[in-house]
Amino acid sequence: MKLKLYVDRMSQPSRAILIFCKVNGIDFEEIKVDLSKRQHLSSEFRAINPLRKIPAIVDGRFKLFESHAILIYLASAFPGVADNWYPADLSRRARIHSLLDWHHLNLRRGAAVVRSSATVSATFVLNTVLAPLLGLPQNQQAAAEAEKILVSSLSTIENIWLKGDGQYLLGGLRPSIADLSLVCEIMQLELLDGKDRDRILGPHKKVQQWIESTRNATRPHFDEVHNVLYKLKTKLSEQKSRTPLSSKM
Amino acid sequence: MKLKLYVDRMSQPSRAILIFCKVNGIDFEEIKVDLSKRQHLSSEFRAINPLRKIPAIVDGRFKLFESHAILIYLASAFPGVADNWYPADLSRRARIHSLLDWHHLNLRRGAAVVRSSATVSATFVLNTVLAPLLGLPQNQQAAAEAEKILVSSLSTIENIWLKGDGQYLLGGLRPSIADLSLVCEIMQLELLDGKDRDRILGPHKKVQQWIESTRNATRPHFDEVHNVLYKLKTKLSEQKSRTPLSSKM
Repeated sequence: MKLKLYVDRMSQPSRAILIFCKVNGIDFEEIKVDLSKRQHLSSEFRAINPLRKIPAIVDGRFKLFESHAILIYLASAFPGVADNWYPADLSRRARIHSLLDWHHLNLRRGAAVVRSSATVSATFVLNTVLAPLLGLPQNQQAAAEAEKILVSSLSTIENIWLKGDGQYLLGGLRPSIADLSLVCEIMQLELLDGKDRDRILGPHKKVQQWIESTRNATRPHFDEVHNVLYKLKTKLSEQKSRTPLSSKM
Repeated sequence: MKLKLYVDRMSQPSRAILIFCKVNGIDFEEIKVDLSKRQHLSSEFRAINPLRKIPAIVDGRFKLFESHAILIYLASAFPGVADNWYPADLSRRARIHSLLDWHHLNLRRGAAVVRSSATVSATFVLNTVLAPLLGLPQNQQAAAEAEKILVSSLSTIENIWLKGDGQYLLGGLRPSIADLSLVCEIMQLELLDGKDRDRILGPHKKVQQWIESTRNATRPHFDEVHNVLYKLKTKLSEQKSRTPLSSKM
């Protein structure tokens, strides 16, 4: 039975898993769980993940959720995945676990002020670019809090995790599951307008190079999977100078 | 060279690692990094963990931080650790990763309203029992927010993670690193006074049994390592009816 991925390409960890499977030639069926239609809350999906979150996978009779756990499982259970993604060496593997744990408590941390399930990047994007266009009130406090955590996290990536000779996290010469997971999270910032994006990402030159390296290492799948984001960005910038989206609905 | 653990027994993940090593006969040197003296911010400790958080370990020349990553490393790198702690079977292992990831985003989630590095249990304890005794202002909003996440997390443990025949998480018949990590986090609630503790933990009968099972499976180390907490609890209840601690300092 083919591996099933329950995903929505608008979700950062969903994109990481899709790209991982495509790059590593893992055969899968993509089942869209449309977050905007609240399909993750359906009783049908509850049978897949009782916690009603995506991404989730079903491999034969085995069900699994949480994106880091899924990436580790796929890298371990499917033959032909190159060692760089999730090294067999215990200390290299341990450093990847450490980095993924850090990721949870920083970039992926829920921004409690607004929506407990939204990450800081999603919260920042919501309260800068999306809210005004959707006719929703902007939560300035949430945006400011999210920006603070974002900038601090990007500095840590720049100065600690990207220290070393390699182009990837932990000094790696080739990408690991941690690179893919973190880059997909940060890609959410593509939705910002130029000014905000430059303020946040501009000072972090190594971070920018690393995103580009990860993108190049996973071509053409990276752009294909992120296409939904690029399209939304275009739509947003077209609509920005017009009336709020909500008045057109 | 002996394994070095940089810990403070007042920190929940430090306790989990200490208990794990003791139960599994792993020889180690305990190096106290006193949080109350802000020793984790010292330049000396920065050389161990640039992110200045405990617990951290040094094994030979290998340095590692983040408690889940440490538990996985210890279970994998040291001989003689029973399989139940971190099973070799890929799907059992994957479910443990999934559970540890969930832990990060729930019980261990930073309660953003007060201190970004405090977990919800620590935040709740601070704003109910500790703040008044320390002469600090109680943040009612933070306490209420933390209680909400706590109760919701305990319900998920009770109804989803403790589903099954076993006494442990994921239906296990013996404890895993996830049991130890989560139980040590919840043990922070021991500092609450009886009324608050009963309100939070009372309705979760399976959770209470599971804490007791984990304690029994790791005796006598569990109580020995938690002794610092039991002592503080006694001290707090003695001082509760008297003047604020701050006026005695």
